[in-house]
Amino acid sequence: MVPPPVIQTYPLSSYSFKEKETKIGKDSSVEDRLARMKLNYMQEGMRISVEGILLIQEHNFPHVLLFEIEDTFYKLPGGKLKPGEPEIEGLRRKLSSKLAATSPSLHPDWQIGECVGMWWQPSFEDVMYPYCPTHITKPKECKKLFVVHMPERGNFAVPKNVNLLAVPLFELHSNRQKYGTIASAIPLQLSRFKFNYNNPQNILP
Amino acid sequence: MVPPPVIQTYPLSSYSFKEKETKIGKDSSVEDRLARMKLNYMQEGMRISVEGILLIQEHNFPHVLLFEIEDTFYKLPGGKLKPGEPEIEGLRRKLSSKLAATSPSLHPDWQIGECVGMWWQPSFEDVMYPYCPTHITKPKECKKLFVVHMPERGNFAVPKNVNLLAVPLFELHSNRQKYGTIASAIPLQLSRFKFNYNNPQNILP
Repeated sequence: MVPPPVIQTYPLSSYSFKEKETKIGKDSSVEDRLARMKLNYMQEGMRISVEGILLIQEHNFPHVLLFEIEDTFYKLPGGKLKPGEPEIEGLRRKLSSKLAATSPSLHPDWQIGECVGMWWQPSFEDVMYPYCPTHITKPKECKKLFVVHMPERGNFAVPKNVNLLAVPLFELHSNRQKYGTIASAIPLQLSRFKFNYNNPQNILP
Repeated sequence: MVPPPVIQTYPLSSYSFKEKETKIGKDSSVEDRLARMKLNYMQEGMRISVEGILLIQEHNFPHVLLFEIEDTFYKLPGGKLKPGEPEIEGLRRKLSSKLAATSPSLHPDWQIGECVGMWWQPSFEDVMYPYCPTHITKPKECKKLFVVHMPERGNFAVPKNVNLLAVPLFELHSNRQKYGTIASAIPLQLSRFKFNYNNPQNILP
């Protein structure tokens, strides 16, 4: 038998979540975002973005950490790489900016794991595909999703104006209407992994 | 940058498909199938099945080989492991039984690659999930999907009574209605791979 890759999970209560200062989004509408993408594309070429899937357990079942933005939009932590920036380094930078206390000395040593999916945006429209569509030679964005292996314990800090939710895989599965194309596909992209649930009684103090 | 794993594809025309004798399915209805599963479960415990994703290219885009059964049902080649049978060995056996000429000397040397997903059936109902649902301690089936790396050329043989189709990823994507839960999720489960299209002019004779 080929053993499946393993993701260790720990209870949500193993982590502390503090508030940090409000982060103002760069765009106030989808149109603004697409206009900014267009400008960036002309200057830098295809946008490469990286996002992290951070998993915790509740009731011996995996939950994904998702930002909820204005009660309507769900997003993994991550963002755009700088031109030439390595993926793993860029994802670490983005995770610290979105999920860690401001002082660099408090930034976790993020353990970036397997890439589980790539999404392609063929044009300046808000639609992504899990493949680069045929006849598209110049896609506008490639988004890569990575598993982030969680430590046994940790301290996070989340901007005041966003909610961080732990959403179970069964809630995301086939729920594109609510969670969007990318988050609703996470259960399918994680289905090759085995989850190892570490319950409090098994964790040494 | 972390290079994505690569799947080499070759044009459909690199392969020959012959007919072989009709294969009679074991069940004549979904009810029959579930009744047989129940009986097997009592004798052997959880059913473990393995299926192969064989990819070819047309118009520089990946297509998945799928059996079409009675114009309504689509299935990857594969099947149930024997008790104790190793996965890779069992998948090779199943691929030869479904896709190769009868003589063992003509069986391809199947190159079984990455596991891309696992599906769980919690009860004796025809519903599968990409995770083992909470509170299910005795799932009835686990189905594992593997990439099968295709040779540059090959000869296949398909039972007279089934159609083998090459379906492009864009046709499968989000088309659960037509292709079913498992086949429609393949594009999401392959999205982390890079496809390397080998066109005829690049292939040495």
